[in-house]
Amino acid sequence: MVKRISLLGATGSIGVQTLDIIESNRDKFQLVSFSAGTNIAKVREIAQNHQPEIVSVLRAEDAESLQRDFPEIRIMHGKEGLMAVACEAGPDLLVNAVIGSVGLEPTLKAIQSHIPIAIANKETLVAAGEIVMREAAERNVPILPVDSEHSALFQSLNGENPKRITRLILTASGGSFRDRTRDELAGVTVEQALAHPNWSMGNKLTIDSATMMNKGLEVIEAHHLFNMPFDQIDCLLHKESIIHSMVEFEDTSIMAQLGSPDMRVPIQYAMTYPDRIPMKNAKRLRLEEIGLLHFEKMDFERFKALALAYDAGREGGTMPAAMNAANEVAVQLFMEGRISFLQIEELVETVMAKHQKIAHPDLETILQTDAASRKMVYDIVTRLQ
Amino acid sequence: MVKRISLLGATGSIGVQTLDIIESNRDKFQLVSFSAGTNIAKVREIAQNHQPEIVSVLRAEDAESLQRDFPEIRIMHGKEGLMAVACEAGPDLLVNAVIGSVGLEPTLKAIQSHIPIAIANKETLVAAGEIVMREAAERNVPILPVDSEHSALFQSLNGENPKRITRLILTASGGSFRDRTRDELAGVTVEQALAHPNWSMGNKLTIDSATMMNKGLEVIEAHHLFNMPFDQIDCLLHKESIIHSMVEFEDTSIMAQLGSPDMRVPIQYAMTYPDRIPMKNAKRLRLEEIGLLHFEKMDFERFKALALAYDAGREGGTMPAAMNAANEVAVQLFMEGRISFLQIEELVETVMAKHQKIAHPDLETILQTDAASRKMVYDIVTRLQ
Repeated sequence: MVKRISLLGATGSIGVQTLDIIESNRDKFQLVSFSAGTNIAKVREIAQNHQPEIVSVLRAEDAESLQRDFPEIRIMHGKEGLMAVACEAGPDLLVNAVIGSVGLEPTLKAIQSHIPIAIANKETLVAAGEIVMREAAERNVPILPVDSEHSALFQSLNGENPKRITRLILTASGGSFRDRTRDELAGVTVEQALAHPNWSMGNKLTIDSATMMNKGLEVIEAHHLFNMPFDQIDCLLHKESIIHSMVEFEDTSIMAQLGSPDMRVPIQYAMTYPDRIPMKNAKRLRLEEIGLLHFEKMDFERFKALALAYDAGREGGTMPAAMNAANEVAVQLFMEGRISFLQIEELVETVMAKHQKIAHPDLETILQTDAASRKMVYDIVTRLQ
Repeated sequence: MVKRISLLGATGSIGVQTLDIIESNRDKFQLVSFSAGTNIAKVREIAQNHQPEIVSVLRAEDAESLQRDFPEIRIMHGKEGLMAVACEAGPDLLVNAVIGSVGLEPTLKAIQSHIPIAIANKETLVAAGEIVMREAAERNVPILPVDSEHSALFQSLNGENPKRITRLILTASGGSFRDRTRDELAGVTVEQALAHPNWSMGNKLTIDSATMMNKGLEVIEAHHLFNMPFDQIDCLLHKESIIHSMVEFEDTSIMAQLGSPDMRVPIQYAMTYPDRIPMKNAKRLRLEEIGLLHFEKMDFERFKALALAYDAGREGGTMPAAMNAANEVAVQLFMEGRISFLQIEELVETVMAKHQKIAHPDLETILQTDAASRKMVYDIVTRLQ
C-alpha cells in the first residue's frame, strides 16, 4: 500500500531528505501536498516531479505565477495554505519539517483531522507541547519523532513498558564550537558557527547546535514526547554523534540507537514505523573503523543556553514559548550580522527574565507570548544599535 | 503473581546470581526446585533458605545424607534428578545454568512439558540447537537468553520485525589475554587465564573467554536463538564490555543494549521478560565516567578458536557438538595442568578434523558424538603423556 505523504517545509534540509526517501521508494510513498517558502525554482521542480494535489508557498505573487504554470494543482499561500497542505489532501502521514513556531497551527489542525504526524519541527513542541500532546492523546493520533535524538529514544522504547524508564539520555556533539572555551566565543563569526562537525543541517539548527540551545529545545521536546520529568532527562557530550541517544530502565539496562550521522534514517523510520525498509545509498556504521567513542559530562556553564532551556522547561506554562521565540529572532539577527554570538543567549536570558509566565496557556496565549517575545528582542536590539 | 522458578546449576556463578535475584524479590519469585553438583554445604544452605519441593545433586551418597536432614524435600541425584528438577515441580520458568552438554536432556524434557526456559547453558544450544529450537517452536515455548550478549541482542530486537535484521554484532572483551600476542600465549598459566578483566564468571567460561572459544560458542548460540546465517553474525572487539551486543537493521539503524558488566541484569531480564523490575544494589552506567569506548576488528588468526567455531557452525550437523565436547574436555585438562593453553585449540582442531559429520542428527546421535569426542581428546592426551 502506498502511503500518502504531506510535507510542510519541502525545501529545507529535512524536507529535501524526505523527498529523497519518497523518490527512492515510489512504490511505498506518494507526495500529495507540500509547502515551501520563497525558493520557487525548487517548488516548480518538486511540483513537476511529484504532481501533488496541493502546494503552498509563502507569498501570494509566487502562488499566482505557479498557478498559471500548474493549472492542475491547487496552489495556495500563507497560513491558509499551510493549513490546507497539512490536511486537505487527506494524507496518511504529515511530515512537519518547517522551522519555527509557524508549524504549530498546522500541526494542531492535522491532529484534529486524525492525521499521524512525523515531527521535525521541534519549536512546535517546545512552544506548545502540552496542548499538542493532549490533543494527540485525546484522539489517539501518533506523534512520531524525526529528530535523530528523539528517534533514537523512540526506537529504544520499542516494546518496552514506559513506566520502567528511569532516565532519557540525550547525546550532544557539542556543535561547531565544542573545542572552544567560553572566552573564545566572543568574536566568532557566522561562517564559523555554520560549520557543524558531524551533521548536515539547516542554518537555524546549526547555530542552535553551536549555542547548545538545540539540545535545550530537544530536552523540552523529549519531556513532552515521552512524558518525562526534567530531572530524568540528561545530556551527555558525545562528539562522534554515533550513539544518537539512550534510555535507561529500572533494571539499569540502557537501550541505545546507533548509526552513521544521516538524517534520512530517523526521517525514514518515522515514515515506515513500526516497520523498517532498506536505506538507499547509506553508509553502514562500522565501529571498528570509528575505533573510539568519547563521552564527557555536560558543562552547563560553558553551554549556558542549555541551562536556560532546562529552566524554561521546569518553569513551564508560556516560558518555553517565550524562550523559543526569543531564540529564533536572536539567531536570525546573529545570521544577519546584527548581534554577536554570545548575545544570542543574553537576549534569551533577558526575555525570560522579563516574561510574566502564564500557567497552562491556551493556543491564543502561546501565540501572543511568541509575538511579544519576538518584539521584545527586536526592541532591545534596536535600542542597542 | 509469584513466578515459580526451577534452577539447574544453583551453585555455579549464574546459579548464585539467580538465587540473589530471587532472594531480593521474594514477592515476585519462588524457588521450587534446584540442582547442584558436589558443593553440599551450599546445597544445604539453599535448601534451608528456600524450602524447595525437589533438590538434585550429583552423587547418590550426598542425596542420601541430604534426605535424612530434609525429610520434607524430595532429594534426588544424577541424570534422573536433573530431569525431575527441570519439570516435576511445575515451574513457570526453568533457569538452565548448568555448564556443558549435560544440560541438553533436561532442556528438551522441559520444552516437552511446555516450560519456558531461561538458558545460560550455551553448550546445549551449541550441541543441539537445531533440535532444541525446533521442539520449542513446535510447542511455542519461549527460549530466553541469559548470556549478556544474547540478552543484549534479544533486548535490541524488542518490538522489531526480525525479517529486517541485517547483522547481529557480538561484542567481545578479548578475555584475560587480550593484550598478548599469539607467541606470548605459549607458557600462560591457569591462574593467569582465570583473571578476567571485566566479568565475574565461572572457571570454564573464563578459560573459554581467554581462548575466544566462548565467543565462538556464542556465535553458534546466536545462530540458533535468532535463526540467523553465520555470514550475518559478526564479532567486534570491545574491551570495556559496556555495549553488550548490537543488532543492525536494513535501514542501517543499530540497536544496542549497554550497562555496567553485571550478569544479574540479563538473568533478571530473562526472569521478568517482557517487563523489567528494579535491580537491587546495582551500579548504574555513567558513560561520562567511563569516558572512552574502544572498538577493534576481530582478529581470527590471533583468536583461532573463534575461527574454528565459525567453521563448525557453518559445517553444522554433529560438528558443533564434536567441537564443543572436545573443548569442554580440553579446558578441563588445562585447568588440571595436564595440557598447555594453546593445546586447547589444537585438540579442538584435531577432533574436528577427525570427526565424520552427520547432518541433521537426532538426540541420540548428538549424545554419541559428544561421548566419542570426549574420548578422543582423552585418548590423544594420554598417548602424548
